[in-house]
Amino acid sequence: MARGSVTPLLKEIRSNPLLWLLAFVPVVFIARAFKPEAHTLLFLLSVVAIVPLAALLSRATETVAARTGDTIGGLLNATLGNLTELLIALAALRVGQYVLVKGAIAGAIVTNALFMLGASFLLGGLKHHVQEYNRNTARLQAGLLFLATIAVLIPSVVGGADAPATTAVFIQRLSAGLSVLLIVAYGLSLVFSLITHRELFAAADHVEAGEVQWPLRLALATLAGVTVLVALVSEVFVESMQQAATALGISPAFVGFIIVALVGAAAEMVTALSAAVRDRLDLSVSIALGSASQIALFVAPILVLFSYVIGPTPMSLQFWRGAVAMMLISTLTASLVTNTGRSAWFVGVLVVTVYMIFAMTLYLLPPQ
Amino acid sequence: MARGSVTPLLKEIRSNPLLWLLAFVPVVFIARAFKPEAHTLLFLLSVVAIVPLAALLSRATETVAARTGDTIGGLLNATLGNLTELLIALAALRVGQYVLVKGAIAGAIVTNALFMLGASFLLGGLKHHVQEYNRNTARLQAGLLFLATIAVLIPSVVGGADAPATTAVFIQRLSAGLSVLLIVAYGLSLVFSLITHRELFAAADHVEAGEVQWPLRLALATLAGVTVLVALVSEVFVESMQQAATALGISPAFVGFIIVALVGAAAEMVTALSAAVRDRLDLSVSIALGSASQIALFVAPILVLFSYVIGPTPMSLQFWRGAVAMMLISTLTASLVTNTGRSAWFVGVLVVTVYMIFAMTLYLLPPQ
Amino acid sequence: MARGSVTPLLKEIRSNPLLWLLAFVPVVFIARAFKPEAHTLLFLLSVVAIVPLAALLSRATETVAARTGDTIGGLLNATLGNLTELLIALAALRVGQYVLVKGAIAGAIVTNALFMLGASFLLGGLKHHVQEYNRNTARLQAGLLFLATIAVLIPSVVGGADAPATTAVFIQRLSAGLSVLLIVAYGLSLVFSLITHRELFAAADHVEAGEVQWPLRLALATLAGVTVLVALVSEVFVESMQQAATALGISPAFVGFIIVALVGAAAEMVTALSAAVRDRLDLSVSIALGSASQIALFVAPILVLFSYVIGPTPMSLQFWRGAVAMMLISTLTASLVTNTGRSAWFVGVLVVTVYMIFAMTLYLLPPQ
Repeated sequence: MARGSVTPLLKEIRSNPLLWLLAFVPVVFIARAFKPEAHTLLFLLSVVAIVPLAALLSRATETVAARTGDTIGGLLNATLGNLTELLIALAALRVGQYVLVKGAIAGAIVTNALFMLGASFLLGGLKHHVQEYNRNTARLQAGLLFLATIAVLIPSVVGGADAPATTAVFIQRLSAGLSVLLIVAYGLSLVFSLITHRELFAAADHVEAGEVQWPLRLALATLAGVTVLVALVSEVFVESMQQAATALGISPAFVGFIIVALVGAAAEMVTALSAAVRDRLDLSVSIALGSASQIALFVAPILVLFSYVIGPTPMSLQFWRGAVAMMLISTLTASLVTNTGRSAWFVGVLVVTVYMIFAMTLYLLPPQ
Repeated sequence: MARGSVTPLLKEIRSNPLLWLLAFVPVVFIARAFKPEAHTLLFLLSVVAIVPLAALLSRATETVAARTGDTIGGLLNATLGNLTELLIALAALRVGQYVLVKGAIAGAIVTNALFMLGASFLLGGLKHHVQEYNRNTARLQAGLLFLATIAVLIPSVVGGADAPATTAVFIQRLSAGLSVLLIVAYGLSLVFSLITHRELFAAADHVEAGEVQWPLRLALATLAGVTVLVALVSEVFVESMQQAATALGISPAFVGFIIVALVGAAAEMVTALSAAVRDRLDLSVSIALGSASQIALFVAPILVLFSYVIGPTPMSLQFWRGAVAMMLISTLTASLVTNTGRSAWFVGVLVVTVYMIFAMTLYLLPPQ
Repeated sequence: MARGSVTPLLKEIRSNPLLWLLAFVPVVFIARAFKPEAHTLLFLLSVVAIVPLAALLSRATETVAARTGDTIGGLLNATLGNLTELLIALAALRVGQYVLVKGAIAGAIVTNALFMLGASFLLGGLKHHVQEYNRNTARLQAGLLFLATIAVLIPSVVGGADAPATTAVFIQRLSAGLSVLLIVAYGLSLVFSLITHRELFAAADHVEAGEVQWPLRLALATLAGVTVLVALVSEVFVESMQQAATALGISPAFVGFIIVALVGAAAEMVTALSAAVRDRLDLSVSIALGSASQIALFVAPILVLFSYVIGPTPMSLQFWRGAVAMMLISTLTASLVTNTGRSAWFVGVLVVTVYMIFAMTLYLLPPQ
């Protein structure tokens, strides 16, 4: 690639302080080579390194999306929008850490549907008295989330504790079937929102006016290169996570649910919050709920199906009942607060407080 | 009865292919007389025979209703609209098959509130871009369903597993009390929708223009005759069901929940779906949710009260927790998707997918 | 205080038959002095004595509120509006009767959110065909209730039955943390509804035209004096309650949930119902849901925090799962029925029937 074509990338890095953290990426690999036993250090370094990589990844995805037209672009955003979360989960999947994978999935749903949404309402509401947004998007995404929550709830409710051996087979076959159902529903939702009923959903274009446009080749190269880097850093992150949590005295549930989710969503969080402050709440709601439903209906089922190929044993869709309760409550909350299409600061307080109830519970939870 | 007055009935049978299945009704009784041990055959024959009988039954009920004025007609539809389901359940009740009775009740609620509603939205939406309907009806029926779900949920939640003997007495007395409450609430809902606030609810007249009008005497005679036939075929159905399910390798939960419910609702299903295609979604929603709430607030409590008279022991309103969860989710889903009064094809996909999650779970569920 | 300034109080007592029951207040203390063992008598006498005291208390609070301007007055109503419930609960807290305290809290939430709301809709609807009200108030209060329900639900769901010792410490720390969160959220809701977005919420002024205005000093003196009396009578009530329930053959759950709640809310009930009949449904909804959310987000957390100081051991926010289910259902019901801002008599029937399902269940529940 010619030197000239990289200029927009370097410009972006210079102008965006979040991307200065990219300096930590090589540090992670150097530290791991020299101090493979320093789990807490490696954990903290990898957390700091993933944040700017995730930001670059979503910037590159959006650029490719913007350059390939509305429908294909929407599709790309819908499949690669949570690539960071997918890569972290794949790293955990490969080594059979299913508790972490499920914690990360549930945590990402909860963090996007509650924290990102609530913080957008709160910050937007502190600046603007009352804000309005397109509630069709919110309704569609809340409906999808509701569907995914049911798919996760039913195996837990129906598969009782009796006859564990039979039940394990049942849960596994059911999980595979439900995963296929969810992916099909997700695919149809894209047909609906990108093709047949496109006019109902405001085109939430992420690339803002005034931003430097990247050439397509640069965007594709960045996408490829950064994907590899995120995958490598995620490996370090997953390896060091458990022992670091013990050393720092944080419960593993808190790490999976809260820290992994916030790290993976940091880049989108910045976009959603700054959109809310600029009174573009449509965009904030669409990023927050769109991400949550994408993880629930696309990333999670893909991981279940992948586990047959790359995991030591198949992974199920059955979650710990606390996680199921939190996903259900998040879905209900998002659905209730978005059904008017209006918001004020206190709506944000309500939603963020629900998130804080979860975070506090997980933080205090004794290790099982 | 004079030969001439039967003409509309024969005409109806000639013009409606579904009714040609009436030929299977005598076959059922012949097969049972000669091959009483052929459970699988008897099961399949009785399934096929109930479908056209149910269609005739609802046609006759509607005709009588149409001839007796809005209020009495509405009352008739509201009490006899699910006569098939009631007759099947009574056959099972008499022989003490309470698991089947409860499965059929829960299944009928879920099938009507999810499958019939969702398939109407889907088929209607494939033909029409966006459809609108009177949401007052949907709100009332969803409210009634919600009430019934709570009545079913509370005994399960409150009546713990401790002190089983005391609990059994408590559950039984509570079930009788709750049944009376539900029937009273159902009665008051009829006063509300047929008398005091009639103008809020579009008169969903089932008899379409262009249909041949039956004389009242023919309709009454058909009602009486077909009721007896359905009762007799239901007996064969209930007798053969369990062993047929084992032979066919289907879980009994699936038979009760899905097959019995689809067989009982087949006739209404045809009406609801064809109304949706003709952009008369008001009628589809009113049939789907009206049937579900009628089963929940009228058929189920009546069966509990009847069990004191005709059952070997009293039957309770306490359901298996998987059934309670499915009823609760169906109610919430119906309530959430109908509260705008607008629909497009993807709403149908969402609702049908929830139903498929349930069907898949029950299909895979190992026999307990 | 001069004789003249007491005149409005005496006038009020003469004109309001409910206040004639004040005659029972001295009777309670006389009976307790002479017949300390007559638990059933003391229980009944204290019930009858609390009702008029509660009425006086809310009258005095409202007068002080009306005299101190909208914001401070709103704040006073919001903190002292459920003083009776708080005083009864404090009496039970001091002697470590946490089951009664929690029953009273859950019962007060359910009674206000269902019975008071439903009876207002029903009575109002019997007189007026369709009634409209400001749904912003209902939405805010339902949102707060939802938040409190989640705070109560999460410890019960997450804190499993395993490792009871660790769990007890976890539940206790979590309860303290959640209590602080709820009080902060409640405080912010007051900032929202009384200061920043005041215009969205109709000023629900309780003091009606035509009522005699009390001087501020009289109101303050009444507030202080009656608070002491309620506290003293509550002590008799709590002491005698348990043995009276046994003697009367009523389950303790029923007493805590239904009787304590109805006694504590009697005065507000009268105001809410008479407002509904006069087609001032705004006021009814605001009293019913406002009381419920105040108990959930202010009284209950205050009691948890107070228990560290005045209780024998700290009290948790963890409720019996039947109570959690009832609070959750009450919140959902209130939220679903109020989201249109319109009402007719059958909406009242629905809501009251949910309450009757609960009351019947608790009445029949065998003592554990």
